[in-house]
Amino acid sequence: MPLRILTAGESHGPALTAIIEGLPAGLHLDREAMDHQLARRQRGYGRGGRMQIESDRTEITSGLRFGVTLGSPLTLTIANRDRENWRERMAVWEGSDDDPVRVPRPGHADLAGALKYGHRDLRSVLERASARETATRVAVGAVLRQLLAEFGIWIGGHVIRTGMAATGDSFRTLPADNRKQYETLIRDLCGRAAESDVGCGDPETAEMMKKEIDNAMAAGDSLGGVFETAALGVPAGLGSNGMWDRRLDAAIGAAMMSIPGIKAVEIGLGTEAASLPGSRVHDPILSAAPPFPGRGSNNAGGIEGGISNGQPLIVRAAMKPIPTLTGPLPSVNIETGEKTGAHRERSDVCAVPAAEVVGEAMLAIALADALIERTGGDSLDRMKRGLDI
Amino acid sequence: MPLRILTAGESHGPALTAIIEGLPAGLHLDREAMDHQLARRQRGYGRGGRMQIESDRTEITSGLRFGVTLGSPLTLTIANRDRENWRERMAVWEGSDDDPVRVPRPGHADLAGALKYGHRDLRSVLERASARETATRVAVGAVLRQLLAEFGIWIGGHVIRTGMAATGDSFRTLPADNRKQYETLIRDLCGRAAESDVGCGDPETAEMMKKEIDNAMAAGDSLGGVFETAALGVPAGLGSNGMWDRRLDAAIGAAMMSIPGIKAVEIGLGTEAASLPGSRVHDPILSAAPPFPGRGSNNAGGIEGGISNGQPLIVRAAMKPIPTLTGPLPSVNIETGEKTGAHRERSDVCAVPAAEVVGEAMLAIALADALIERTGGDSLDRMKRGLDI
Amino acid sequence: MPLRILTAGESHGPALTAIIEGLPAGLHLDREAMDHQLARRQRGYGRGGRMQIESDRTEITSGLRFGVTLGSPLTLTIANRDRENWRERMAVWEGSDDDPVRVPRPGHADLAGALKYGHRDLRSVLERASARETATRVAVGAVLRQLLAEFGIWIGGHVIRTGMAATGDSFRTLPADNRKQYETLIRDLCGRAAESDVGCGDPETAEMMKKEIDNAMAAGDSLGGVFETAALGVPAGLGSNGMWDRRLDAAIGAAMMSIPGIKAVEIGLGTEAASLPGSRVHDPILSAAPPFPGRGSNNAGGIEGGISNGQPLIVRAAMKPIPTLTGPLPSVNIETGEKTGAHRERSDVCAVPAAEVVGEAMLAIALADALIERTGGDSLDRMKRGLDI
Amino acid sequence: MPLRILTAGESHGPALTAIIEGLPAGLHLDREAMDHQLARRQRGYGRGGRMQIESDRTEITSGLRFGVTLGSPLTLTIANRDRENWRERMAVWEGSDDDPVRVPRPGHADLAGALKYGHRDLRSVLERASARETATRVAVGAVLRQLLAEFGIWIGGHVIRTGMAATGDSFRTLPADNRKQYETLIRDLCGRAAESDVGCGDPETAEMMKKEIDNAMAAGDSLGGVFETAALGVPAGLGSNGMWDRRLDAAIGAAMMSIPGIKAVEIGLGTEAASLPGSRVHDPILSAAPPFPGRGSNNAGGIEGGISNGQPLIVRAAMKPIPTLTGPLPSVNIETGEKTGAHRERSDVCAVPAAEVVGEAMLAIALADALIERTGGDSLDRMKRGLDI
Repeated sequence: MPLRILTAGESHGPALTAIIEGLPAGLHLDREAMDHQLARRQRGYGRGGRMQIESDRTEITSGLRFGVTLGSPLTLTIANRDRENWRERMAVWEGSDDDPVRVPRPGHADLAGALKYGHRDLRSVLERASARETATRVAVGAVLRQLLAEFGIWIGGHVIRTGMAATGDSFRTLPADNRKQYETLIRDLCGRAAESDVGCGDPETAEMMKKEIDNAMAAGDSLGGVFETAALGVPAGLGSNGMWDRRLDAAIGAAMMSIPGIKAVEIGLGTEAASLPGSRVHDPILSAAPPFPGRGSNNAGGIEGGISNGQPLIVRAAMKPIPTLTGPLPSVNIETGEKTGAHRERSDVCAVPAAEVVGEAMLAIALADALIERTGGDSLDRMKRGLDI
Repeated sequence: MPLRILTAGESHGPALTAIIEGLPAGLHLDREAMDHQLARRQRGYGRGGRMQIESDRTEITSGLRFGVTLGSPLTLTIANRDRENWRERMAVWEGSDDDPVRVPRPGHADLAGALKYGHRDLRSVLERASARETATRVAVGAVLRQLLAEFGIWIGGHVIRTGMAATGDSFRTLPADNRKQYETLIRDLCGRAAESDVGCGDPETAEMMKKEIDNAMAAGDSLGGVFETAALGVPAGLGSNGMWDRRLDAAIGAAMMSIPGIKAVEIGLGTEAASLPGSRVHDPILSAAPPFPGRGSNNAGGIEGGISNGQPLIVRAAMKPIPTLTGPLPSVNIETGEKTGAHRERSDVCAVPAAEVVGEAMLAIALADALIERTGGDSLDRMKRGLDI
Repeated sequence: MPLRILTAGESHGPALTAIIEGLPAGLHLDREAMDHQLARRQRGYGRGGRMQIESDRTEITSGLRFGVTLGSPLTLTIANRDRENWRERMAVWEGSDDDPVRVPRPGHADLAGALKYGHRDLRSVLERASARETATRVAVGAVLRQLLAEFGIWIGGHVIRTGMAATGDSFRTLPADNRKQYETLIRDLCGRAAESDVGCGDPETAEMMKKEIDNAMAAGDSLGGVFETAALGVPAGLGSNGMWDRRLDAAIGAAMMSIPGIKAVEIGLGTEAASLPGSRVHDPILSAAPPFPGRGSNNAGGIEGGISNGQPLIVRAAMKPIPTLTGPLPSVNIETGEKTGAHRERSDVCAVPAAEVVGEAMLAIALADALIERTGGDSLDRMKRGLDI
Repeated sequence: MPLRILTAGESHGPALTAIIEGLPAGLHLDREAMDHQLARRQRGYGRGGRMQIESDRTEITSGLRFGVTLGSPLTLTIANRDRENWRERMAVWEGSDDDPVRVPRPGHADLAGALKYGHRDLRSVLERASARETATRVAVGAVLRQLLAEFGIWIGGHVIRTGMAATGDSFRTLPADNRKQYETLIRDLCGRAAESDVGCGDPETAEMMKKEIDNAMAAGDSLGGVFETAALGVPAGLGSNGMWDRRLDAAIGAAMMSIPGIKAVEIGLGTEAASLPGSRVHDPILSAAPPFPGRGSNNAGGIEGGISNGQPLIVRAAMKPIPTLTGPLPSVNIETGEKTGAHRERSDVCAVPAAEVVGEAMLAIALADALIERTGGDSLDRMKRGLDI
């Protein structure tokens, strides 16, 4: 709660903007690191032409001087490169749209958003509901992971499923009794995944994923998948059991579930924990020394009682297929009531690798917030003193 | 966000308390309905003697006059019936504890909480981290479901897994193309489950669940499970795609993940959606008429783009086994560092039926908040006028 | 914002309750100190019989063990001693009121509240709008001033005007160039005021104030007044210029203006500053050493740019007369529209000494919140480490 | 609380930015009306050359399509026209400052901010602490007053004191028993003030004010003053007595006190109410019909019990003199400790007319937030239906 973040911007509007309020002063930001994250979000096998258009870059217009945060609100903007083609239909002031969108896409915000806001042209909903919005999340996350890095916290992830193609490689199955080795294995998995355009470090599975995507594209269909994210170096004591909305797992549940298309979130063993007896689930305590007590395993995924326990955070999320299909789904025209195929907007077949990057960003946001709550904010020096245990 | 709720109370302290701020005036509360929910939370095959001790009742000490809400903050208190035995060890003022808890339980908040708050007696953590805290959530939820009922919103749920025993009956697999019939089927499933002390309406599975519990008890072990909750009559337009923390799915993700022991949350098809092509996941739109547009299926679980779409909400949660085992897990004494079996606190073997009731309560809280945000608050009459579409 | 506080309770309901969430663990509370503050609130020359009835005491039912905070939410309750006489008319459940209040009092929440919440019996508004509610603020403040005391922060105050009777003694006019002496003078003023039942340390003015009260009482009229509060030992750096709602002066403006009857709030020189040239207003900087830089005067009242500057905080508030007059004001019956004298509820003639105590409490709340925001929370030890500069 | 607003930007950084989240869809915005407010903020006799440089215009980059709000977050940016001269000293990325600011100005955030954020170059504080920041408040307020206008709410104001020059014309002294006439008188006062470059509609006083400013300028000194703002057409029922931080007077207290330089805030009669008996302060109730009950006077300034009562809101604020003097105040170099004259930044002699415009904006923000809380948001149509009484 100490960090306040607002994002704004339509997919084909003039620009995306985010303001981060509550950042400490004294944090050196690396510009490349930010654009690197934006580039990661744009990767992905089988993504539409849209991605090439974008090639996002963050511009900072407040809160930073000589590359160091001032403690005042930081503004990030990302231009919409395709804007030129939309100046008229997405005009801020005078303008009109001769071709309003009337047929909502099943699975998208189109219909629910129109009912909520009273729009008759679905474009007035879908432009904000587009996943384009997640670019600001990644930019914000890119700032906050640099803050976390100052405290030795590192975040990574990988894709483990695309449609029916899945790998058995998972953070869950890595041996966790030796912290150093465990962390190295996690980093390695993420490292290999980073080189794959489907976000998966297992070459065989990656090939199958591409085939899935090729097939779906040929069929005019779309795909979802599953990704995992991990945070290393998280000290014990973030979050709280004191009130339900202070819990770190609740914050992560919200952060992940808020990513467009995500329909399931799991921490640690997740659903598997429900089938096993307690003696096989709970992680033995081998030492109690802070900030990273020794544990025999990490089935809890780094959170016990809503509080970080010093183990790596392990979070998994499942994404439904993209709602825009070239073979359009049954829908109705909201003006005429006539049954027809849903609106088609340029779209990808599968966006799981991008969603994984967004997942890392959201994890960074949740952790940075919990960290500042614990240490107090104001300046990086003060935060470091505050964290010292 | 319009509703502000705080809960308080240790498991063996004088009392549990909750304050609900932001309730509309003019809501008639039914006392029995509240105690009924508390009683439901206390049900469960294989629960320890603790449950008998409790027999909870809610007392209201503010915000209500002649059974009708005033619009001012409502205070709920629930006495801790076992308090007598703990007057000394859990004294508010003068007192001491000759037998401090030193050995944290794997899977519990004990260790992480001690590191967070600097406690050396783990009882100072575990008393608040106890699931006893969820009694206030159920009481708060019992108030809010009465508010929701005024708008035709109904909430229910059932247990679908206890350890290895699982039923195929699921809200997910019910035919959803006929709303009335779909809702009836959901209510029926919940109705049958209500008569089961394992929370499962399928008699055969229920028997297997009891055997699982018996076996775990005999083995000094514990069990988790999976439950589903549903909300019927939810109008389209709750939540928002505009900012990630306004999304209804994010709110539900947080609400569910905040329940002690929950490690996975799924909405609609959940994880299954990740394996299927878009053409088999997205729910056809058959009509666009508010507040409950017609749909051919409900794989989205009632939320698209972070906004309720007028379909029943379907939420699933997986609970890990209880962390207190009579055959204690390996741990260390935080004072001496000595390896030893973890602390044993009186506990149940399996608390999934109770968690399911808490899940319903948390769903009620998330929905009531979103509803008031949409209609404005102040008085029930105004809310009804505000919702009118 | 790190502290979350909710209060509840009607004037003649079963009890008043407050929950404080976000308190650090490890704070030793002194019970007497809390009841002392409640007793101070009940003081006052010319207060009605009501005060004798009350004789408030705080009971704590959560968040405290052996007199030390646990870090979990703290619950405070204060019984309404006059409850017996109101069991029927203010029944929580079954009951009714044969004598509903229909004629709103000018100056009170009666009418505006009825319009807001849709009440036809004004008692359903006035019971919460009664100044009785401030007892919970004082109790909460009494906890937080003990937290502040751990950081060397002390809060006091005095009454400087009652109706037409006013003293020239003011924190504003004390020489402020020698911090130690300045603080001693402030404490002395407060100390003398504490012995006066009109809250004023100047005996001559105190006599005049009592005469004002006597006269008003005889005339069936009521009185307001002005009080000052001060906080000593406030370190530099609380609040922020970064965003308008992070400013410490904004927090204090809200805190003071929220006290029933307060119509003006001033910081430092307040309104006087508007008439003087900058050269006579701004406080010379004599040294820049934290946490308490040296200054030649304290016209800023301890806040510059929305941030505490290490000087004593000086806040003044003006209270309008009590809205309940025995010689009732013109009003109308909300049912019949008939013109008639306003409802009379038992009341005092003047409540400024009580309001002053509430003002100290609200100042404590605003400061504690800002302090925890700066240091981080969790435990008193961590806070102290965090504050260290 | 339903509206969330963040502003950002340094005085000589690339741009100022604000995001407004929670606006209803369907509001037509008038571009000129926004720039008109910005121009009003820049008015003022005796303002430095800086004002000419600026000539602010708002650009909107999200949340608006064809001039109508979408319901998604609205982004406002205002370029800093003087940016060219500061590209190096206020570079976002690479750069340095050969002439860091070391000598804090008494009365400014310089010193307190440096201690808070750990800055050694005071420019890193003063750039955000500059009153330039209020341009975003005025832009945000300009949007929200268009929302309020849809509900018949109108906001205006005027300056009543500049240094020693003061007028007796005040909203307080206007006859208030005839609503229509009362509102006309208020509008007339504001209308006359709008034509004055000292913001005062009384020509004689305006002349004196200019002389005050001339004299102060000649003396190297600075001036403060007092302004009043009013809101007409405010319906009864905004704010709440239920919890202290829901009160409308608290919100206004915070909003006004947060304006740079403001040291006193008064509502209605303000401080004067403290000297008068209740019989002369409280406004007789002549009729109880919503939304604007009839009252004999408006000493309460439109708020009773923390709730709007349907009368015009009357708010007064006192501003201290500007802290930057050309005849600099005593200070010390924070690096060397050496005593010297404070830093001089280009500045005005008196900014009260600008602050008055900011005051109107802050009033608009507080009212819009309270209005949406009462009606619910989402769309303008829904809000209007929700407000209907």
